[in-house]
Amino acid sequence: MSTIKDVAKEANVSIATVSRVINKSPKASKASIETVNLAMKKLGYRPNAAARALVSQSTLTMGVLVGDVSDPFFGSMVKAIDTVATAQGKHLLIGNGYHSAQKEREAIELLINHRCEALVIHSKALSNDELIGFAKEIPGMVLINRHIPEIAQRCIALDNHRGSYLATEYLIKKGHQHIGYICSNHDIEDTHQRKAGYLQALKDNHLPDCESYIEYGSPDEQGGEMAMLNLLAKNQPLTAIATYNDYMAAGTLSVLEENNIEAPADMSIIGFDNGLIAKYLHPKLTTVRYPIQMMAEKAAALALRLANKEPAQAETQMFVPTLVKRVSVIAH
Amino acid sequence: MSTIKDVAKEANVSIATVSRVINKSPKASKASIETVNLAMKKLGYRPNAAARALVSQSTLTMGVLVGDVSDPFFGSMVKAIDTVATAQGKHLLIGNGYHSAQKEREAIELLINHRCEALVIHSKALSNDELIGFAKEIPGMVLINRHIPEIAQRCIALDNHRGSYLATEYLIKKGHQHIGYICSNHDIEDTHQRKAGYLQALKDNHLPDCESYIEYGSPDEQGGEMAMLNLLAKNQPLTAIATYNDYMAAGTLSVLEENNIEAPADMSIIGFDNGLIAKYLHPKLTTVRYPIQMMAEKAAALALRLANKEPAQAETQMFVPTLVKRVSVIAH
Repeated sequence: MSTIKDVAKEANVSIATVSRVINKSPKASKASIETVNLAMKKLGYRPNAAARALVSQSTLTMGVLVGDVSDPFFGSMVKAIDTVATAQGKHLLIGNGYHSAQKEREAIELLINHRCEALVIHSKALSNDELIGFAKEIPGMVLINRHIPEIAQRCIALDNHRGSYLATEYLIKKGHQHIGYICSNHDIEDTHQRKAGYLQALKDNHLPDCESYIEYGSPDEQGGEMAMLNLLAKNQPLTAIATYNDYMAAGTLSVLEENNIEAPADMSIIGFDNGLIAKYLHPKLTTVRYPIQMMAEKAAALALRLANKEPAQAETQMFVPTLVKRVSVIAH
Repeated sequence: MSTIKDVAKEANVSIATVSRVINKSPKASKASIETVNLAMKKLGYRPNAAARALVSQSTLTMGVLVGDVSDPFFGSMVKAIDTVATAQGKHLLIGNGYHSAQKEREAIELLINHRCEALVIHSKALSNDELIGFAKEIPGMVLINRHIPEIAQRCIALDNHRGSYLATEYLIKKGHQHIGYICSNHDIEDTHQRKAGYLQALKDNHLPDCESYIEYGSPDEQGGEMAMLNLLAKNQPLTAIATYNDYMAAGTLSVLEENNIEAPADMSIIGFDNGLIAKYLHPKLTTVRYPIQMMAEKAAALALRLANKEPAQAETQMFVPTLVKRVSVIAH
C-alpha cells in the first residue's frame, strides 16, 4: 500500500501539502487539491484513519453498546444512532453486552481504548457505581434506557411505570376487573417499574391486587408461554392480561389459542414495546409504544455535544410511552 | 488522560517494558506485568488502539457492511459475524448501505480507511466490476449474499433459484395447479433467480406459466399488499401463491383476510427467508429457510483467514435453502 510520501513525490508537493488536502484544511490551494487527489487516485492511496486519529487525538468513530444486535429493538436503536453519527461524519463501532456484566464491561473498555469520544451505552447488568465511573472518565458517554440519579442529565430513559400504568388503566376503562400480569423474571429496573405501574393502576381504581394474578418468566416468547400456562393452571377469574413486553404477549396468545381460549373474545391482552412483531400477531396486538428511535437520536446527539464540550441543553431526558390501539383488547 | 510515559515513570520501568506488557509480549516478565498493570490501574491509563494500529499496521477491528441494521435479517448477520470476530479478539465497525450504490461505496471506503483488514460486505447496488476492484485492494474482503464468478471463492451466496423451486414444487406436490407468484420489483439477482426458480418448477411439472399469475411490488409488507390486490383484481383461478419473501407474504395474508379469503383453506401461501416474523403470522407461515447465520459465520471466518494470509479452504460457498413447514399450505 502506498504512503503519504509516495503521494507527495508523485504530486511533486510537500508531505505537509498532502496532509492539508487529506484533512480538508482551508489552507490547501485549489491547484494542490487537484494534483494531490489525482496522485492519490493513481497510487491507490488511502488515508490512514488510525494515523489521523493519533495526530488529532480524536477519532471518527462513535461507540455503541447494545444488548444483542439481532433483536430488532436494538437494531432500530443502532440505526437511529447511525443516522445522527453519519450526519456528523462519524461511524459506529458496536459492542454486544448480551446482558452479562463481564461482557458489558469488556465492550465498554474496548470502545474507550478505541478512543471513541462519544458513547451511547445500553447497560442493564453493570452497577450504577461502575457506570458512574465510566461516565466520569468519558465526558461524551450517555446512557440509554437507564436512569442513574447522580448522572441524570446524561441518561435517556423511558418512564416504564407510566407505560404499565397506562396499559392497565386502559383495561380497567374497558370494564375489566380481574386483570392478570405476565411479568419478566429478570431482576432489572424495567421489571420492577412496570410491575409497580400495573399494581398502582389497580390500587388507584380500588381493584384488589392479588399476587396470584401475577406469573413470571423470561422476557421472551417461551417465558410468556410458561407464565401463561401457570396462570391458567391457577384457574383465576381473569378477563384481561397485561404483559411485560410484546414477546411475552406472543407466548401468551399461543397458549390461549392452544387451549381454545379466544383472544380478545374470552381474554383481552395488552403488550409493551410496540416492537416489530406486534402488528403481525393474531389478533394484532394492542400495546404500549417504546419510542426507542427518538430516544436513540436524542442520546446520540447528546453524546456528540458532550464529546465536543458543548453544554447539554436543558431538556427532558425521560421519555413517555403511549398507547397503540389494535384489536387484542375489547370491552368486558 | 495519562500516557505510556506516565505509566513507565510510575512503575519505574522503561517505556519498552510497558509496551511489552500492553502488547502481551512473551518477553514481559511476570514481575513487570504486575508492576505495570498496577501503575496503569492507578493512573487510569488506557492503551490507545489507534497508536497500536499504527505501529502494528493492523487493527483490531473487522468491517461489516449491511443493508440496514434495523432489519432483523441483518441483525442476525451482524451477530453471527460478531461472535466469530470476538473469539479472535476483533471488534466490529459497521456501515449501512441502505441499498444505495453511493452509500455502499462510501461505507466500504471508510472501512478501508480505518484499515479493517477483514471485511464482510453485503452489497446489492454496486457493480461486479467495482466490487472486484475493492476485493483486489483488500485481500481479506468477502462478499455475502452475492455471487461474482471472477472472485467466486470469496463469495458466500445462497442458491435462490433452488429455494424458489423448492417452494413451488412443494405447492405442486400438494395438488395445486394454478400457482401465483408475488415478486419483488427490485432489479437485483435475488429477484431474477427466485422468479426463475418458480417458473422452472412449473415447467418441469408441465404446468402452464402465465405472466398474469405474477404481480410485482417492493419487497416489504406494503409491496405484498399492493401485489396481492392486483392479483385479486385479475380474477385468476389461483389456489396457492409463492412469495418473494416473508414480508411480502405478510402483506398477502393481510389482503386475503380483509377480503374474506381464508388462508390456507381458500389459498395456500408460502414465504421465503424464515425471518423473525414467519412464526408470528396467522396462519404460521410455511417458508424457505435462509441460513444467514451459518453463512455469516462462514464469511467472517473466511475473511479473517484471508486477512491473515492463510489459504482459503476448498469448501462449498453456495448455501442451500430448505423448507420450513408450518400451517399456511394445505393440499388442494
